[in-house]
Amino acid sequence: MNILEKTKKTIQRYQLFNQGDRVLVGVSGGPDSVALLSILNALRHTLSIHLVVAHFNHNLRKNSVTDQRFVENLARSLQLPFISAQGHLRKSRKKSSVEEIARESRFKFLLKAAKKLRANKIALGHTQDDLAETVLMRILRGTGLGGMRGILPKRTLYGIIFVRPLIETGKKDVLDFLKERTIKFRIDPTNKTTKFFRNKIRKELLPLLERKYSKNIRQILANLSTTITADYDYLEQESGRLFRTFSPKNRSLKNIRFNLRQLEKIHPSLQRSLIRLAIENLKGDTRKFGFDHMSEIEDLLTHRPTGSVVHLPCRIQALKEKTQLSLRRKTTG
Amino acid sequence: MNILEKTKKTIQRYQLFNQGDRVLVGVSGGPDSVALLSILNALRHTLSIHLVVAHFNHNLRKNSVTDQRFVENLARSLQLPFISAQGHLRKSRKKSSVEEIARESRFKFLLKAAKKLRANKIALGHTQDDLAETVLMRILRGTGLGGMRGILPKRTLYGIIFVRPLIETGKKDVLDFLKERTIKFRIDPTNKTTKFFRNKIRKELLPLLERKYSKNIRQILANLSTTITADYDYLEQESGRLFRTFSPKNRSLKNIRFNLRQLEKIHPSLQRSLIRLAIENLKGDTRKFGFDHMSEIEDLLTHRPTGSVVHLPCRIQALKEKTQLSLRRKTTG
Repeated sequence: MNILEKTKKTIQRYQLFNQGDRVLVGVSGGPDSVALLSILNALRHTLSIHLVVAHFNHNLRKNSVTDQRFVENLARSLQLPFISAQGHLRKSRKKSSVEEIARESRFKFLLKAAKKLRANKIALGHTQDDLAETVLMRILRGTGLGGMRGILPKRTLYGIIFVRPLIETGKKDVLDFLKERTIKFRIDPTNKTTKFFRNKIRKELLPLLERKYSKNIRQILANLSTTITADYDYLEQESGRLFRTFSPKNRSLKNIRFNLRQLEKIHPSLQRSLIRLAIENLKGDTRKFGFDHMSEIEDLLTHRPTGSVVHLPCRIQALKEKTQLSLRRKTTG
Repeated sequence: MNILEKTKKTIQRYQLFNQGDRVLVGVSGGPDSVALLSILNALRHTLSIHLVVAHFNHNLRKNSVTDQRFVENLARSLQLPFISAQGHLRKSRKKSSVEEIARESRFKFLLKAAKKLRANKIALGHTQDDLAETVLMRILRGTGLGGMRGILPKRTLYGIIFVRPLIETGKKDVLDFLKERTIKFRIDPTNKTTKFFRNKIRKELLPLLERKYSKNIRQILANLSTTITADYDYLEQESGRLFRTFSPKNRSLKNIRFNLRQLEKIHPSLQRSLIRLAIENLKGDTRKFGFDHMSEIEDLLTHRPTGSVVHLPCRIQALKEKTQLSLRRKTTG
């Protein structure tokens, strides 16, 4: 199966596109996004989709402008609309890495650009190799089922659908395709350093695992992520249903209560999922909420007396009352 | 928290023992099982349990007899009943590794010994390090949610309950405990080689990951395994319920049928779980049944015409009929 057919299969399997979609393709100029643009351009008539090209210039290095011109010329040669913006990196908040801030500015630009060019979808060039790296990185940093989903082929964020048509395609196939068709691309030099954790995994750990432990490690991690995505989705669906029916009367934005007797009766897996949902409702996400916090809450429920409190990240606390567990945001002041 | 308290907590959390239990402790003479025996012996009055000691001599190496005498003396010094047996390694079946055969003979011996000494539980010395190794090994070899459960703290096999009270305790804590109390143990020299895949992970990969990628990797893998154990248990419970109600009339030991329309309506995660259950019912386990086989069946269901067949391992085939999916064992001849 060649890369065009393979991508088509991924598009079908996850229903990434509908007829008439206006798709903004994020192109850095690197091999993955250039290949994605070429592939989607080859498929656009079959799929009946319209393409526009977006490039974000991070200004992270000297050659940034050359990259931008390269992508602009590529879009022009394909007679596709082109939009770009420049980022100016400021280390605004503590604890954010350069990589994190860059990702965030790029994300904001893509949303804005899609709005401006009236695109209803954003396509990104992530490959199976990126997926494998992400899953491995999350395993090493500590994650539950949710984190092991890795990079999703399709995801709605802030009202726009992000799709990743190359997520089932290996990097090697991407490079072979570009070579075969003599398509030029730019190389992102940050990929050559092992400065960032992800790059260390990409350049050192995955090749080592491949060589000495598991020849198909990328495929294996991608498969694991695929099955777990479905499993997690099912658990989320079930706990979401439960959450909505559980104690809707007592719910507010600042205080979510669960009846202890009801909570006791449900499966531990759903219990955890419910508590995660409550945290998500209180603070927007569960990013700083890990295994140890969940264990503390479970210990609170099963072993500690009424009136006990567990302090969670982001000023959230869990209070064991006489008949209920109360999760709430601490009031400031 | 010292190791005695920690072990007690694990015993409580997973309800490993009941008052009056007669527990057969499997002791190789290595540090883990010697520590387990010492800890359970210290706790046996608090827990109201009775202990008996079992040793299996694999005859895999010269010092086997010394190991056996060592464990026998240890049991005698604690005034506990002792039972042992000798294994004679034959490479009876192809494709089984020496390690696999040894594990199997040991397992059979433990079942027999428990029966003979009227023990209702078998306690084994697996530590958190073993759990981390198992999870990592399964990830590298390719697994789904089920395999990531790793080593369970409590498991019923052939009517007897296997428990692992040290599964939340790190190897380092075990060694510290033995040193502190000057308790002697034997070292299994097979641990010193990196001949087997597991040993390579133990001696090379885990220390490398610990040093360069994730300081708490053992704890992290154990935590991952713990949450996934609960999630998998819930999925299994739900699909088991569904399986029993699905098409009970059409079920036989040789042919399990699912109505296609009904199958379509349920969540992909449960679909897979149902199909795994069917395979398990047909052939006893799902060991040779992997990601690619499941993908084949999904492709059969969604894209292939009526009458198409997918051939699965162990002479099982999936047939797409007009209104149903039929999973069956091929008849010989």
